[in-house]
Amino acid sequence: MVLFAGVTDVVKWVQATSLETILEGMVEYLEADFRRWPAFEKAPRVASHSDVGVIELMPTSDGELYAFKYVNGHPANPLRGLQTVTAFGVLADVASGYPLLVAEMTVLTALRTAATSVLAAKYLARPDATTMALIGTGTQAEFQAIAFRTVLGINTLRVFDTDPAAVAKLRRNLEPLGFEIHTAASAAEAVDGAHIVTTCTADKANATIVTADMVQPGQHLNAIGGDCPGKTELDATILVPGSVFVEFTPQTRIEGELQQVSPDFPVTELWNVITGDAAGRSSRDQITVFDSVGFAIEDFTMLRYLRDSIVGTAFARDIDLVVDPDDPKDLFGLVAGSNAPVPA
Amino acid sequence: MVLFAGVTDVVKWVQATSLETILEGMVEYLEADFRRWPAFEKAPRVASHSDVGVIELMPTSDGELYAFKYVNGHPANPLRGLQTVTAFGVLADVASGYPLLVAEMTVLTALRTAATSVLAAKYLARPDATTMALIGTGTQAEFQAIAFRTVLGINTLRVFDTDPAAVAKLRRNLEPLGFEIHTAASAAEAVDGAHIVTTCTADKANATIVTADMVQPGQHLNAIGGDCPGKTELDATILVPGSVFVEFTPQTRIEGELQQVSPDFPVTELWNVITGDAAGRSSRDQITVFDSVGFAIEDFTMLRYLRDSIVGTAFARDIDLVVDPDDPKDLFGLVAGSNAPVPA
Repeated sequence: MVLFAGVTDVVKWVQATSLETILEGMVEYLEADFRRWPAFEKAPRVASHSDVGVIELMPTSDGELYAFKYVNGHPANPLRGLQTVTAFGVLADVASGYPLLVAEMTVLTALRTAATSVLAAKYLARPDATTMALIGTGTQAEFQAIAFRTVLGINTLRVFDTDPAAVAKLRRNLEPLGFEIHTAASAAEAVDGAHIVTTCTADKANATIVTADMVQPGQHLNAIGGDCPGKTELDATILVPGSVFVEFTPQTRIEGELQQVSPDFPVTELWNVITGDAAGRSSRDQITVFDSVGFAIEDFTMLRYLRDSIVGTAFARDIDLVVDPDDPKDLFGLVAGSNAPVPA
Repeated sequence: MVLFAGVTDVVKWVQATSLETILEGMVEYLEADFRRWPAFEKAPRVASHSDVGVIELMPTSDGELYAFKYVNGHPANPLRGLQTVTAFGVLADVASGYPLLVAEMTVLTALRTAATSVLAAKYLARPDATTMALIGTGTQAEFQAIAFRTVLGINTLRVFDTDPAAVAKLRRNLEPLGFEIHTAASAAEAVDGAHIVTTCTADKANATIVTADMVQPGQHLNAIGGDCPGKTELDATILVPGSVFVEFTPQTRIEGELQQVSPDFPVTELWNVITGDAAGRSSRDQITVFDSVGFAIEDFTMLRYLRDSIVGTAFARDIDLVVDPDDPKDLFGLVAGSNAPVPA
């Protein structure tokens, strides 16, 4: 039997466990998998493009477990009341090839993006950071806020969005949780005085959400929204050799802020900082940039964490995705009813 | 909500509908999709290899529907009571990127292989064929027999397998259905006098199951078991220019009997025969070969057929694989419980 965790299961699991506990666990799992980064198979996304969006498969394996995520990106979906991005994923056993877990990953991807951001900031931001600018208060914003407070103690937010309703939504969601929230009138005002600047805007364009003159010494830029070809958020002059940290270089050059610089622009992969093989922040005043696009290994980690968390609990169900005939060579007997048991 | 068809659902659907009716429907759907072959996106399989097997993703799209199949191949699995090959698949809506159907595909793949074989034979075998040799009586054999009887009226089988238990299993499954079965003492004896020769052996090797001297004028060879690198079944000298028909040439050159000949060996793609743009059998005495490896479009067709067949019936269930918050931008509210409804 294969384990299934649908949206209901994952939401109930989060509510029963608390976002904070889960994000802490995810950061711990991510850190462990980033430490063994070379052990993973790394393949490009397998994309199917249409006029209105893209459907992608993101596979990876560590030799014991195999995982892939299915994810779509359809910018016009919200006009029809649908999510821009939905996702689900599968974890499988490399030794048998059998699937182990099928899970919703829309919620899980929101959590993994926040967990990856805070893992990077743990190594790259100034250790005494207390204030975060949040530019773009859409789907990802609250998860970022909770992750940064849980792991780094950031309780003060300076928020900006071009859509006042999105800001109101964020305040409604986060004020009851005790965050100190300052609504800024511009991106510049949000950035001013923040120790960490998180950009998570949705506009699919080469936008300049943060210009070079806004950025202050010592800030860590957590650039999430520049995550597909033709979609960036930072002024290219902010990207300075030695200051840019990425997940998987070949993918970030295509999808991240790196689109704006030359193909040989020097970057540091985050896993090298976590293992100690590369330097992170070099000085108190350095401006660091985590150019995040999301990589398959992080989704692998999420499925691994989810499975470890829900196996044997009420937050997962069994589904009969794999046949189990008495005689493995007699599939016909199973179909015809003579090679019992048909799985219940 | 996403439709789910597990093993139980598919088996019950087959039993309630009859294999014959389903195979006829599948051949009809396959024929329609082969006719519009150029409309499909064709990508190579995305394979993850390990010492003991392979896990593959096989995606395709016709611009309206997108599908992928997950399939493993683990030759040592039967020693542990597991299937060598298991599969499941997903059908999705290109316009929204949302998944529509998650389905088991182990049974479905067995049916699609048989349906594709008989579709090819319908165009390539002599129209008066009445007898089929079945070499290899493993998982695929009975499905081939039923498909060929249903669509082409073949009721006489000449069977051979190195494993007497596998032959006994086939007789036990097919004799009650009225097949006339002759158990041959060798592959040569099975081939002798047959109008169609189906090879579906499991041994992962460059084997020569059928040698050139066995083959008789006018026979159609339905070569199924040569389907991955290093695995072939036919004597290479049987492959004569003008006689070899394939699904998707680049893939068959890597996985099929074509491995044994030069990379520029001329072949005909089956869809061209079906549309009438290429000749099939050129004479009553020609020996034709369908070098079948299985292609993603056939799996797409199976998912399309399954969905059309089971939507709105008791043979499918809803699963909550995709979030559905009231406010599509407020995923956090859904997780936190304030952006109801959580899907039931």
